[in-house]
Amino acid sequence: MFYIIDILGTISFAISGVLIALNKRMDAFGIIIIAFVTATGGGMLRDILIGNTPVSWMKNMTYVYVIVATTIIAVFIKRKIDYLKTPMFLFDTIGIGLYTLVGIQKGINLGLHPIICISLGTMTACFGGVLRDILCNQIPVIFRKEIYATACIIGGFSFFLLRKLQLESNLIYLISGMIIIIIRLLAVRFKISLPNVYKDEVEEVN
Amino acid sequence: MFYIIDILGTISFAISGVLIALNKRMDAFGIIIIAFVTATGGGMLRDILIGNTPVSWMKNMTYVYVIVATTIIAVFIKRKIDYLKTPMFLFDTIGIGLYTLVGIQKGINLGLHPIICISLGTMTACFGGVLRDILCNQIPVIFRKEIYATACIIGGFSFFLLRKLQLESNLIYLISGMIIIIIRLLAVRFKISLPNVYKDEVEEVN
Amino acid sequence: MFYIIDILGTISFAISGVLIALNKRMDAFGIIIIAFVTATGGGMLRDILIGNTPVSWMKNMTYVYVIVATTIIAVFIKRKIDYLKTPMFLFDTIGIGLYTLVGIQKGINLGLHPIICISLGTMTACFGGVLRDILCNQIPVIFRKEIYATACIIGGFSFFLLRKLQLESNLIYLISGMIIIIIRLLAVRFKISLPNVYKDEVEEVN
Repeated sequence: MFYIIDILGTISFAISGVLIALNKRMDAFGIIIIAFVTATGGGMLRDILIGNTPVSWMKNMTYVYVIVATTIIAVFIKRKIDYLKTPMFLFDTIGIGLYTLVGIQKGINLGLHPIICISLGTMTACFGGVLRDILCNQIPVIFRKEIYATACIIGGFSFFLLRKLQLESNLIYLISGMIIIIIRLLAVRFKISLPNVYKDEVEEVN
Repeated sequence: MFYIIDILGTISFAISGVLIALNKRMDAFGIIIIAFVTATGGGMLRDILIGNTPVSWMKNMTYVYVIVATTIIAVFIKRKIDYLKTPMFLFDTIGIGLYTLVGIQKGINLGLHPIICISLGTMTACFGGVLRDILCNQIPVIFRKEIYATACIIGGFSFFLLRKLQLESNLIYLISGMIIIIIRLLAVRFKISLPNVYKDEVEEVN
Repeated sequence: MFYIIDILGTISFAISGVLIALNKRMDAFGIIIIAFVTATGGGMLRDILIGNTPVSWMKNMTYVYVIVATTIIAVFIKRKIDYLKTPMFLFDTIGIGLYTLVGIQKGINLGLHPIICISLGTMTACFGGVLRDILCNQIPVIFRKEIYATACIIGGFSFFLLRKLQLESNLIYLISGMIIIIIRLLAVRFKISLPNVYKDEVEEVN
């Protein structure tokens, strides 16, 4: 079950990388690298920072095969990818929930402070996109119009709250994962975003 | 004493990150990440390159709390931050002196060559700003109009020179730290910069 | 022999870094950092990802001296560097062959899957340029107009193919290294590049 979510999430992330690389008119090598970094970058950064090396994707060929296959297919059907938007958005959202929990768990295994664990979770879920944007020479989207990060952070805090309540482990995962997914779905549905720190300046303009 | 300098330096670095993030019109998540990377990035890069993982900020919550608090306060008082320019410049300069010495010491502990130690010191002091600029999608300021790096390098060489003279350890730290601070203060005061490698081209234009 | 190729390759990479840094009008500190990152970045990234820390250049001062000397000389003779284009291209190409094999060998030593080893080889040969382009705030050249990467990948696959045939170890190195060098020379000579994934769009325009 976890495994299927992981693969579907990886596919969604890889496709989002392919789309941006095509948009930047990269060649075949660039496209595959961007797809790869988008899909694995968050976990790779986490592994580097905690010293879990060789990094995860080097020890599990499934990711490599899935990403390469996804990239090739995505390039061929690129004009029809619009039809995949809704399922991709769903897989992507569920994937983010899962990756956050994976990152948190890695931090717990190392005995790190809960806030650091939540940072690792958020990093796992969100920083593949940050690395992708750096390689594509643009300011990371997530720093300007935040989409996932707050959901991951709130989900992470719920995780440790539920843990204090000594709930059963699987239940903690399920609930905090669902919180991340629901917050993101609601945020996108109702166009909720972080409070605007530039509000006062805009008011002045008026 | 070291501890207070470290905290004041961290605050100055974080505020400089906040100002650039505001300038790039980032949202709350982007601002806090940029503040964090500016303040911790040099040490984080050093830790990754020497294999000191999990990286330092994951093992000491003080940095996390100080940076988050600084960021929130800085965003609220952003129009009045100009008044803080002089103290910030001082803390920043003293911080750079300290961070260079911290980086050098880490290299010595690993038995690395003095030139590598000086590189690690300069990296610790200066590369938070480099990572900040990469995330903000601009060429690192320090590569175009160098401000700190030469001071760190000269201070680093002084450190190893004083060490050869077998001075007392605390005295070595104090003197080489002061050299870094004084060089930077003088460089800014008298607008001294590195010799211009493009001079001949400019002359041609004349 | 290997050692001489390594040094000549390092010099070529460093010079290519200097040229781009001059083009971006960086100061002396920026130029030396870009030269350094171009020459050592691929191996550094590989070392970080596989956990081989402190990274290689910290343990062998030769690289540091060669890169610093190359940078200083290159800045002084910058107008005459054009005359060096042909030998630089040759050293660069031979260097790429060597670095690919070095990266593959490091992967084999860790017992990693052949595809991961080939990735590590390609990374060692090509990602110094990627890091250089990120620091210079431009989309990595290799992602848009691929020059080396395919040669490295094909050479890497040949390596493992020859290994299956149980050829003698030195012969495997020699042949797969030559394959990389020859493919690159032919690709540049006959302007061969990867198949264009945007072809159909261009046809539409017509």
